[in-house]
Amino acid sequence: MAFDSFFNAELDRLRDEGNYRRFAELERHRGAFPAATRHDGPSPSTVTVWCSNDYLGMGQHPKVLAAMHAAINEVGAGAGGTRNISGTTRHHVALERELADLHGKEAALLFTSGYVSNWAALGTLASRIPGCVVLSDAGNHASMIEGIRHSRAKKVIWKHNDLADLEAKLAALPAETPKIVAFESVYSMDGDIAPIAGICDLAERYGAMTYLDEVHGVGLYGPRGGGVAEREGLMGRIDVIEGTLGKAYGVMGGYIAASAALCDFVRSFASGFIFTTALPPAVAAGAQAAVRHLKTSDTERRLQAGRVASLRERLDAVGIPHQPNPSHIVPVMVGDPVKCRWISDLLLDEFGIYIQPINYPTVPRGTERLRITPSPVHSEADLDRLTSALATLWDRCRIARVPMAAQ
Amino acid sequence: MAFDSFFNAELDRLRDEGNYRRFAELERHRGAFPAATRHDGPSPSTVTVWCSNDYLGMGQHPKVLAAMHAAINEVGAGAGGTRNISGTTRHHVALERELADLHGKEAALLFTSGYVSNWAALGTLASRIPGCVVLSDAGNHASMIEGIRHSRAKKVIWKHNDLADLEAKLAALPAETPKIVAFESVYSMDGDIAPIAGICDLAERYGAMTYLDEVHGVGLYGPRGGGVAEREGLMGRIDVIEGTLGKAYGVMGGYIAASAALCDFVRSFASGFIFTTALPPAVAAGAQAAVRHLKTSDTERRLQAGRVASLRERLDAVGIPHQPNPSHIVPVMVGDPVKCRWISDLLLDEFGIYIQPINYPTVPRGTERLRITPSPVHSEADLDRLTSALATLWDRCRIARVPMAAQ
Ligand SMILES: Cc1ncc(COP(=O)(O)O)c(C=O)c1O
Ligand SMILES: Cc1ncc(COP(=O)(O)O)c(C=O)c1O
Repeated sequence: MAFDSFFNAELDRLRDEGNYRRFAELERHRGAFPAATRHDGPSPSTVTVWCSNDYLGMGQHPKVLAAMHAAINEVGAGAGGTRNISGTTRHHVALERELADLHGKEAALLFTSGYVSNWAALGTLASRIPGCVVLSDAGNHASMIEGIRHSRAKKVIWKHNDLADLEAKLAALPAETPKIVAFESVYSMDGDIAPIAGICDLAERYGAMTYLDEVHGVGLYGPRGGGVAEREGLMGRIDVIEGTLGKAYGVMGGYIAASAALCDFVRSFASGFIFTTALPPAVAAGAQAAVRHLKTSDTERRLQAGRVASLRERLDAVGIPHQPNPSHIVPVMVGDPVKCRWISDLLLDEFGIYIQPINYPTVPRGTERLRITPSPVHSEADLDRLTSALATLWDRCRIARVPMAAQ
Repeated sequence: MAFDSFFNAELDRLRDEGNYRRFAELERHRGAFPAATRHDGPSPSTVTVWCSNDYLGMGQHPKVLAAMHAAINEVGAGAGGTRNISGTTRHHVALERELADLHGKEAALLFTSGYVSNWAALGTLASRIPGCVVLSDAGNHASMIEGIRHSRAKKVIWKHNDLADLEAKLAALPAETPKIVAFESVYSMDGDIAPIAGICDLAERYGAMTYLDEVHGVGLYGPRGGGVAEREGLMGRIDVIEGTLGKAYGVMGGYIAASAALCDFVRSFASGFIFTTALPPAVAAGAQAAVRHLKTSDTERRLQAGRVASLRERLDAVGIPHQPNPSHIVPVMVGDPVKCRWISDLLLDEFGIYIQPINYPTVPRGTERLRITPSPVHSEADLDRLTSALATLWDRCRIARVPMAAQ
């Protein structure tokens, strides 16, 4: 087979649809987030990053960086092995304790990423619990979908955030069938939030395990950053809380927090946990510093909430349509992949504003958007520049504004 | 379902078999590798690590650490996003170029780990190339097995390192069927090396793509550390070279190097590449420093080869059976999980020597072993202590020595 011509034909198809991805090449400036140098233009230029998932700017927090420097000085670069074969360090163990405490669980288990934690934990639970059925929210992230797919367990998809549909699907299964209800707290592309209490009620009624992805919630919600479930006093009713150390915590890595037995089970049987080099100790140390800081500091969360509210007001004032939601994510809808890319390019080239266009397969076709993530590192002046740039482009690119009456 | 009792019962089964894993909790000392403090004993103690996959001690190399410190200072902790959404940095792009150059390929693509690179690349290629069949060596690593499994493509397993069997299986498939031959260079648990040239001959004859995992070869073999395929002048005949940045390069991460079209295809379609936070820039910077250093420095490779030869001689002298192989991995066979763990515990507790027992599922039942990885950071005195400790325990634990005549 002429493999490369097949690959090129598939890539051309993406290009024709407007879904071919070009990555911006960035260099953020520590101490000056959200400023970054863009290296993929004709010459290097300074841009303001508006689409980072380093939601609170913890990626430049002095405590996080100090912890990383210290760990590198003390123990070197990498872990040097899988968790079983010389790769478990003091830093990994301490971070797992910190995370178990964060979620009020007996134990936590670290993975190399949030993606791997979902894939490996769901894949292992669903394949090894005999006869297990996974009830998966229709909006679930790729990492959960792939984990469930990998398990080859039966999967039942329930309508996104729809309790009635979840109940119907639970009720249709035999009582003795082991069930896992898998869902997210904050859905990252729409910013909507699951009815967690209602889901817990149903799971308890039907004897299902609850598996909650708090990747876009941890660090950001709850008095100690335990996520939306913490804020709503529901952590104790969730069997498995999954999170990332690469977004609000600013570093990298993923984890589950759950009962000691469940964590030990996944630790012992999950291929994606066992057969891979452990996170560098410095990554674990930096993440732990971030988790610990956000357990006691509310400043970052309050500042972020202020920026988010402020951006929404400004967008309303100029009639730029953004999807309402109760979270920190501000999706500005465009609805066309080519236009979305075009606006993004103009923002970057003419205004020094970087917002990656979000196209298929990250969001369904026809719902292409600019996904804006205001954070404590954005100033009011940054917000002004962003809003006026968007207003200018909205006229130039002939995208509908929200009629004044509808606001 | 009473989930926790199910988990506990499964864990008890592991315990009964002797396959329950306990992780040593270590703290290596930068500048003093292979020394580490062990934190999981009754009180902290100093141990010599003999089972790390930081094969060359690059995890404490000043150039690697300096690159990491500098990156943290300049750009902060994490990447702050997926590769597509603000997470591609100057450091990622530079590392991909460095790796493409290392293997003489048009392009390279970074993943968060070697595990994810195999899983995502094989999973994507095998599922998206219509009608693809994967011919997988029977000894392949879990990450390749899971990637192939995930693809749901047809898989044909050929006998480990057996060219005749591979040829028979290739010949049995229709000529027009797209085929991928997936194999490793150095097999990590036995230390044997694939007949790469013969595999390339067959792949060319039958029009198959070659996919080579050089995880235990990169950095270690070849004049620039390009792996066994480089040493044997075969890199140009391999379509996809996969490697890790977490073993000989001492940090973390994985990659493929291949044609520009293939890398772009995987970049564009692999869920495990797309939907996950990028590696921290400091990790990429540290890995790049290691790759670059080992392109020109042969010192580490020569020192390692000397230590490996020296250990084999010493083991022979005292009649400790180790599996012969042409690589840097010295498997000392025990053949029983409980005994393997017992010897490992005694080595740790009485001699301050840390060699994790390798039991099922990492190796087949009945082939339990101590897998020793001598490196440039081990001294001749370390080798003496190791050999005499093993000799003592071999008597005490009543494990057969090699009869002098058989040596
Ligand atoms: C909902 C959700 N879960 C899991 C992940 C994966 O986490 P990580 O980036 O740590 O791999 C992401 C995003 O990347 C996500 O949006
Ligand atoms: C042959 C082989 N391939 C891939 C991997 C995975 O690489 P990484 O540790 O970078 O995930 C490993 C070991 O971990 C391995 O032994």
